[in-house]
Amino acid sequence: MPVVNRARFISLEGLEGAGKTSRLADLKAFLEGHGKTVLATREPGGTVLGERLRELLLAPDEGPMAPLTELLLMFAARNEHVTRLILPALDAGRWVLCDRYVDASYAYQGGGRNLGEAPVAILEGLLPARARPDLTLLLDLPVELGLARANRRSAADRFEQEAVTFHQRVRDAYLARARRHPQRYCVIDAAAGPDDVRLAIERAVERLL
Amino acid sequence: MPVVNRARFISLEGLEGAGKTSRLADLKAFLEGHGKTVLATREPGGTVLGERLRELLLAPDEGPMAPLTELLLMFAARNEHVTRLILPALDAGRWVLCDRYVDASYAYQGGGRNLGEAPVAILEGLLPARARPDLTLLLDLPVELGLARANRRSAADRFEQEAVTFHQRVRDAYLARARRHPQRYCVIDAAAGPDDVRLAIERAVERLL
Repeated sequence: MPVVNRARFISLEGLEGAGKTSRLADLKAFLEGHGKTVLATREPGGTVLGERLRELLLAPDEGPMAPLTELLLMFAARNEHVTRLILPALDAGRWVLCDRYVDASYAYQGGGRNLGEAPVAILEGLLPARARPDLTLLLDLPVELGLARANRRSAADRFEQEAVTFHQRVRDAYLARARRHPQRYCVIDAAAGPDDVRLAIERAVERLL
Repeated sequence: MPVVNRARFISLEGLEGAGKTSRLADLKAFLEGHGKTVLATREPGGTVLGERLRELLLAPDEGPMAPLTELLLMFAARNEHVTRLILPALDAGRWVLCDRYVDASYAYQGGGRNLGEAPVAILEGLLPARARPDLTLLLDLPVELGLARANRRSAADRFEQEAVTFHQRVRDAYLARARRHPQRYCVIDAAAGPDDVRLAIERAVERLL
């Protein structure tokens, strides 16, 4: 099988309110329209254990948690996700679309929680080596716009409750990751209308088809 | 304050059925009899979040979990425990007695789950540097005797359900840790009667008083 036809792993990243959930559904339909079978999943979560950890990680009433604890829980959920779901799907020829992945830990725990890159890189090094996205779509938009959209949508979770400065550090860390990994990253202006964002994503993904 | 009077951190390690829980209660009373204030705690657990992770880690019906996931969850619970409970207690002059600590991950995940020492050492390196026990009491006994005692006591948890070969790897890993860290470790024959074990523990602890 030529390499160009192997199943691909695509992660979607971005702030709250960037529209990841809707664009991921669009992208799944787009890929299925091109004859691909697709697994759409999310972090934290994706497995039974992962969803239970998601509850612990996002519940607004869980109270404070040490930043390193949060990072370790994210990677526990992630390892389960990779081992049980993502790698088996890729091995079976299914494309994987993942709403947040390792880059989210660089952004939220490394940037937002001020842990820096080092502990995130150490934990990333423990994951199976081939569990790296082929393409990371960063839906980028100004913090205030993202939070305004997220707040219209639902009650704030433990991350959405954070101050604007937290989310600014998250955005800065995402953009730094994109500059560091220009081959893998595609930064998309998520302040644009939904159709423009959808088309920009499809253009970025087409080169993998 | 002279160094000899600072609060000490003592971990109790050993297989299921080694008698850690009873001996920890005895040791707490012994230290209190010497005028110490003592925090007795356990891993996984010790904090609200830690006890919730303990449920996920021990529940017999949770099904399989990737070994690295288990290790990451153990260290998530441990970091919360160290940050919120153990270091603040030591800073306040309280002695800390902990039923299982980092060495348990070398034994259960490194040995029992065959992960080896490397990932455990990597995660240990992320914990606060001063969160190291002054003394580790290894209550050592043959696997069959420990399991027979544990089975009399209660329904088997997710670790107790494991095969004898798993527990043999755990014991071997504990004994290897003890040989590697002879200054910190005290290996106690837990196949002896409860009073003999209690007295052996008190002799080991007396040099810290």
